[in-house]
Amino acid sequence: MNIVIAPDKFKDSLTGLQVGEAFERGVRRFNPQMEIRILPMADGGEGTVQALVDATRGEIRRARVHNPLMKPVEACYGILGDGTTAVIEMAAASGIGLLRPEERNPWLTTTYGTGELILQALNSGCRRIIMGIGGSATNDCGVGMAQALGIRFTNSVGDEVPHGGGGLGAIHSIDISGCDARVAETEFLVACDVSNVLSGPNGASQVYGSQKGASEAMVLQLDAHLAHVGQLIEYQLGMNVANVPGTGAAGGLGAGLMAFTNARLQPGFEMVSQITRLEEEIRKADLVITGEGKIDRQTQYGKTPLGVARLARKHNKPVVAIAGTLGEGYTQLFSYGFDGIYSIIDQPMDLEEALRTAPERIERLAESLMRTWEAFRKH
Amino acid sequence: MNIVIAPDKFKDSLTGLQVGEAFERGVRRFNPQMEIRILPMADGGEGTVQALVDATRGEIRRARVHNPLMKPVEACYGILGDGTTAVIEMAAASGIGLLRPEERNPWLTTTYGTGELILQALNSGCRRIIMGIGGSATNDCGVGMAQALGIRFTNSVGDEVPHGGGGLGAIHSIDISGCDARVAETEFLVACDVSNVLSGPNGASQVYGSQKGASEAMVLQLDAHLAHVGQLIEYQLGMNVANVPGTGAAGGLGAGLMAFTNARLQPGFEMVSQITRLEEEIRKADLVITGEGKIDRQTQYGKTPLGVARLARKHNKPVVAIAGTLGEGYTQLFSYGFDGIYSIIDQPMDLEEALRTAPERIERLAESLMRTWEAFRKH
Repeated sequence: MNIVIAPDKFKDSLTGLQVGEAFERGVRRFNPQMEIRILPMADGGEGTVQALVDATRGEIRRARVHNPLMKPVEACYGILGDGTTAVIEMAAASGIGLLRPEERNPWLTTTYGTGELILQALNSGCRRIIMGIGGSATNDCGVGMAQALGIRFTNSVGDEVPHGGGGLGAIHSIDISGCDARVAETEFLVACDVSNVLSGPNGASQVYGSQKGASEAMVLQLDAHLAHVGQLIEYQLGMNVANVPGTGAAGGLGAGLMAFTNARLQPGFEMVSQITRLEEEIRKADLVITGEGKIDRQTQYGKTPLGVARLARKHNKPVVAIAGTLGEGYTQLFSYGFDGIYSIIDQPMDLEEALRTAPERIERLAESLMRTWEAFRKH
Repeated sequence: MNIVIAPDKFKDSLTGLQVGEAFERGVRRFNPQMEIRILPMADGGEGTVQALVDATRGEIRRARVHNPLMKPVEACYGILGDGTTAVIEMAAASGIGLLRPEERNPWLTTTYGTGELILQALNSGCRRIIMGIGGSATNDCGVGMAQALGIRFTNSVGDEVPHGGGGLGAIHSIDISGCDARVAETEFLVACDVSNVLSGPNGASQVYGSQKGASEAMVLQLDAHLAHVGQLIEYQLGMNVANVPGTGAAGGLGAGLMAFTNARLQPGFEMVSQITRLEEEIRKADLVITGEGKIDRQTQYGKTPLGVARLARKHNKPVVAIAGTLGEGYTQLFSYGFDGIYSIIDQPMDLEEALRTAPERIERLAESLMRTWEAFRKH
């Protein structure tokens, strides 16, 4: 028998690989001969680098780059097992989690560090770059990233505009002639699950600006700046990106990636599952296991377990999800094809203990599920 | 499809019937047509009256009797659905839980109230009495019970001896002529899972005396008293019970019941499962569910879920256990035939919340298990 274990991370506790390995130990306690394939999953958000590196037996690299306020920060990115694909989470260099609440200010924050990570990947020889763009601190349309790649954004007197969403209003000219030549030889694939456009009521600034620290007044200015850059991209680069769904992701980084790197946007889980060849593995499987730290009503809006369940359902394979917490409304997920949703928590305990002891509990739950599988198949 | 749900109580939270009903609601959410039989189980200990009353659609009765120190107490017993079988837990009248720690004194405590409950059952027309004898506060060889039934225990000058284990030493003569005549017409069936004999190193006093409040010196005297009553039973009643395993149960109540009521001792779960016709139901089932508030390494020593699992295994039916707490070493139980052991706890929480919200969590786990059953059977 053949089992595919394709879990997302259990946040604050285990990576998807660790979840899979714990589950595998439980399976082995029941049957040491079971064929098992662990494919750590992610949805393009936090944990995507780790999952793809683990799934492809790649490696994590570290680089000194600039944070959203242009201070030095050490950021991780990944090289996949093929050695030529990099995976970058923009949040590693330009994420809101890198700033203290009082530092958050999209007028100033830049994606420059994300551009530096791209350069690192190019220097490593990668010509395919997978990007996750969730968790941004920025609203700069990816201009900072583009600057790091050698594109110049100058004002009416030819000076480079300052970093941050505030500087965009002064851009008069976009000069791509200095752009690193390797960018054009490179395939950019961006995980994007939001359909926001660049500006306007459904644009990056008005929808996400305030959570990045913008006042109401600043939101309106930032929005106008994004619209301005969108127009420059159209008039000077001849690309009409502003109304493409997803261009408003990550403070307009979606638009910047499309305009300056010719990136393709794709739903995060679809991207991860293609790279890990999840569907091929599911086709060969007799049982599919997925999971996430928390599964609840929200899980039906595009998170990893749902994606795994859909592929399993498509190929008529039983699929069971495991989680640390089964939250409000999780039974609604049954209608999406889950054949069982189980918590690894097996007695009253606090969160700290649950996080600390997750591996052993996953192991025991796995053993129980294997026995149930065996018994139910036979009867 | 046909499901038998045969759970023990979830202590401090739900009766076995309530566990079963919650599980049934979860099953119905998946399939309203499922054939379901709920058989609340017990092992002869606490909860046996409730389980048997619920399993047979009988009723709970209340009676004013005497507690172990001859003070008034209201005690419950049950009349089974057949209307002619009573079920009595000795602990309801003579249990250690009825006394404050400082009151516990087997020199004084008596099973008189247990005898009164038997009289109540006889008055109700019952001619079959099921007894659970766990949790006793007494070490009186069932003499108090026998006194309530009309048997006289007199000293050398013909006076009735005082209540309690301390009074037994003075018994000179046992006069059964005044025993309630209905006792002889009645079948007594006693749940007993211990193999202690009446006296000596494996006897009631030496093994259990100290936990009932006896000092070391008192233990030795009580032990001698039980041996003395054992001899009187042999010489005056012509019955040799003292060395029968189980006669040392409940401070010698096992011996008293054999000698004075001609009771038959039987392992508790066996008794309960026979009365509820569990095996017949399992034979017709496609899936068996059992459970208990806590399942751990100790569960392998004769508790309910193990008994249910053995019967299921005997008839080659899949059996899954559910519990509130899965404690230390519970996976050892898999070797006894469980095809899955799952906790109803589905997120970090404290015990109080777990006890309070058990029904809804059982319901959701049941739905999940039904879906898993359906999926695994089909693939």
